[in-house]
Amino acid sequence: MAENPTRFGIMGCANIARKVARAINLAPNSTLYAIASRSVEKAKQFVSSINGLSETVKIYGGYEQLLDDPLVDVVYMPLPTSLHVHWAVLAAQKKKHLLIEKPTALDAVELDQILEACEFNGVQFMDGSMWLHHPRTAKMKEMLLDSGLLGPINYIYSSSTFSAIPEFLANNIRVNPEMDALGALGDLGWYCIGAILWAKNYQLPTLVTALSDTIKNSTGVILSLTASLHYDQPEKTVATIHCSFLSHSSMDLGISGSKGSLHLNDFIIPYREDSAFFHFTVDAKLVDLHIGWNLKPERVVVSSQLAQEALMVQELARLVECIRKSGCRPDGKWPEISRKTQLVLDAVKKSVDLGFKPVNM
Amino acid sequence: MAENPTRFGIMGCANIARKVARAINLAPNSTLYAIASRSVEKAKQFVSSINGLSETVKIYGGYEQLLDDPLVDVVYMPLPTSLHVHWAVLAAQKKKHLLIEKPTALDAVELDQILEACEFNGVQFMDGSMWLHHPRTAKMKEMLLDSGLLGPINYIYSSSTFSAIPEFLANNIRVNPEMDALGALGDLGWYCIGAILWAKNYQLPTLVTALSDTIKNSTGVILSLTASLHYDQPEKTVATIHCSFLSHSSMDLGISGSKGSLHLNDFIIPYREDSAFFHFTVDAKLVDLHIGWNLKPERVVVSSQLAQEALMVQELARLVECIRKSGCRPDGKWPEISRKTQLVLDAVKKSVDLGFKPVNM
Repeated sequence: MAENPTRFGIMGCANIARKVARAINLAPNSTLYAIASRSVEKAKQFVSSINGLSETVKIYGGYEQLLDDPLVDVVYMPLPTSLHVHWAVLAAQKKKHLLIEKPTALDAVELDQILEACEFNGVQFMDGSMWLHHPRTAKMKEMLLDSGLLGPINYIYSSSTFSAIPEFLANNIRVNPEMDALGALGDLGWYCIGAILWAKNYQLPTLVTALSDTIKNSTGVILSLTASLHYDQPEKTVATIHCSFLSHSSMDLGISGSKGSLHLNDFIIPYREDSAFFHFTVDAKLVDLHIGWNLKPERVVVSSQLAQEALMVQELARLVECIRKSGCRPDGKWPEISRKTQLVLDAVKKSVDLGFKPVNM
Repeated sequence: MAENPTRFGIMGCANIARKVARAINLAPNSTLYAIASRSVEKAKQFVSSINGLSETVKIYGGYEQLLDDPLVDVVYMPLPTSLHVHWAVLAAQKKKHLLIEKPTALDAVELDQILEACEFNGVQFMDGSMWLHHPRTAKMKEMLLDSGLLGPINYIYSSSTFSAIPEFLANNIRVNPEMDALGALGDLGWYCIGAILWAKNYQLPTLVTALSDTIKNSTGVILSLTASLHYDQPEKTVATIHCSFLSHSSMDLGISGSKGSLHLNDFIIPYREDSAFFHFTVDAKLVDLHIGWNLKPERVVVSSQLAQEALMVQELARLVECIRKSGCRPDGKWPEISRKTQLVLDAVKKSVDLGFKPVNM
C-alpha cells in the first residue's frame, strides 16, 4: 500500500459495489475508507459480505454523512441511474472526486449538470467502464487501430447480453422505470456504444437508428434492443449494437477494416482475470481454388497483474493524487468519453421513441 | 469411381468453375464429362489449368452444343447472373439437371421461370451454396439448433466480405450492371441470408430493412451493404447481414438464443479442407463478483473426408442418379432453399431502392 492512499467512499450497496470494493482493496494506491447505505444495518451486511475488508471501514447510515466526511477523497456511486444527478452534483460540491456507475445519467442534460459541477469544483470524473482499463484494450488499440494495421474501419459489431431470470425481469432496479429507465440500453448498451466510440477514436456517428426489434416491458423499459450507428467521415463505417436481458451471455466485439479484422467474445469482462486474448487477422485471403484460407486468426494473449477494475481504481486514484498533492487539473479525457457515450445513448433512445426513425447527431 | 457416374457438363469457364471441376473429380459418383465456353480455345485453356483432369473431357465451343449432347446429365452453370434465366430454362428443357451458381437469378421472378422449367421437365435443381453440405453445418444444426440447446433464437449476425483489388472493382463481372447487377448483395449477401434462413429453419422474416450505409459504384451496383431481418414469430429474432467487396475477408456467423450461442468465422469456406470447427457456449454466466466467466466457449471440431463442394456434387449426383435409374422425383428441398434466399435478397434490394425503407415480406 502506498503512503496516503486515495480514500474511497462507496455510496450504495449495489451488487456491483462488492466487485469495486475488492478492486479498491487490490489497487496499490487506494483504500476503502467508508461505506454508506440508507441504513447502518445494510452497510454492515455489505462489509461483512466482502472477504478481506478492513474492519476499520467507516459505516454510514446515510449518503449525506459520507459526503460530509472530509477524509473521503473519492465517492464511488453505484446508485440507480435516476439518483445520479442529485447525489453526484452534491458530491462534487463537497469536493469529492467521482467514480460513477454506467449509465452515468438518464440523459446528457443530466450528465452535463454533473460534469459542470465537477469542473466547477475541480474534481475528477470517471465512469465505471472497467474494460477500458484492461491492458488488452490498450494492446488492441496500439497494435491494430492506431497503427492502421486494419485499414479504414468499415464494420463494427458489438453485443452485450445476458439471459435474466424471471425474478430480475419482475423486480430488478434495472428494469424499473423509476430507477433505471434506460433498461438494457443503459446497463448493457453503454458498453457496446462505448466500444464503437473507442474503435472510432471517440468520433461521434452521423446517424443513429434503433431497429424495430426493440422489446420493452409493461412499464416501457427496454429489455432488448438492436441499433445501427453510421459514420460518413473519414470513411463510411457501419456499426451495430445488440443489448438484451433476454439473450444468452455475450460480450462480442468485431472490428473489420479494409486490411484486417479483430474479434473477441468477452470484451467487457474477460473470461479470466489474469490473462485475456483477442483474435486478429491481417491480409487473410482464400488460397487458390478457394478451398481454404491462407491463414487463421491469430490469438494474442495479454496478461494482467491486476484485475481491470483494480486498474481503473488505480488510474483514478493516480489522477486524484496528482490533483490533491501536485495541483494537477482533472483529466478531461474521462468525462469526454462518458459524455460522448451518453450522447449516442440518448440518440438511440430518441430513435426508439420516434418509432425507429434515424436520428442525426 | 462408381459405375455409370453422373456426367457433369460445365457451362462457362469462370474461376469458380475450376473449384467445382475439381469437386466433380473428387466426388465418387460423378465425372466431368464436358466443358463448354464461348470458344474452343478458352475451354481448352480451362481444362489444361486443372490438375488431374482427364484428357477425355469433351470440349465445346458453345453452350448450345453442350445442351444438345445427350450424354450430359447435369449442367453446372457459373455464368454471370443475368444469363442464368435464358440458359437455365433452356438446359431444363433439354432435360439437364442443374447446379447453378449463386445468386440464382436477378430476382425471384426470373428464378421462378427456371424452377418452373425444372419442375415441368422433371430435373433436379440445386444452387452452389457449398457450406450447406459441410458436416459441420449438419453438426451445428443437429446439436444446437434442432435440439433447442440454444433456446429460442434472439439474435443472428452474419458477414461475408473481402477486400477487392482495384482491378476487380473496375472490371469484374460481379460489379458490372449488365452481368451481375446485384453486386456484393448477390455474390456475398446470398450466403448471409442463406445462413439466417438456415438457422431459422427456412422461415421467412416478416420485415427486411437495408441500412443506409450502402455503397454503390458509379453504375449503381452494390459494393457494400448492411441489412436487418426481423422475425416476430414464434419469437422475436433480429438478424443482421453485412456483405462487402470493400472490407477485409470475413465469413462470420453468430447465433444467440436465450440459453446458448454459437460462433464461427469461416462459415462459408472453412479455414482448412479436412477439418473445421465452431465454438459454442451453453449456460455461460459470470462468476460471483462478476470477475470472470464460469466457462469459455467450447470448440467442436468436425472432420471431413471430402471437401464441402465435393459433398455438394455427390449429393446432387445421388439425387440425379435416383431420378435417372429409379424414377425418383426431384428433391424439392433445394429449389425451396434457393427460392427463399432469393425472395429475401429481393426484399433487401427493394429496401435499398426505396431509400432504406422497411419491406414487409
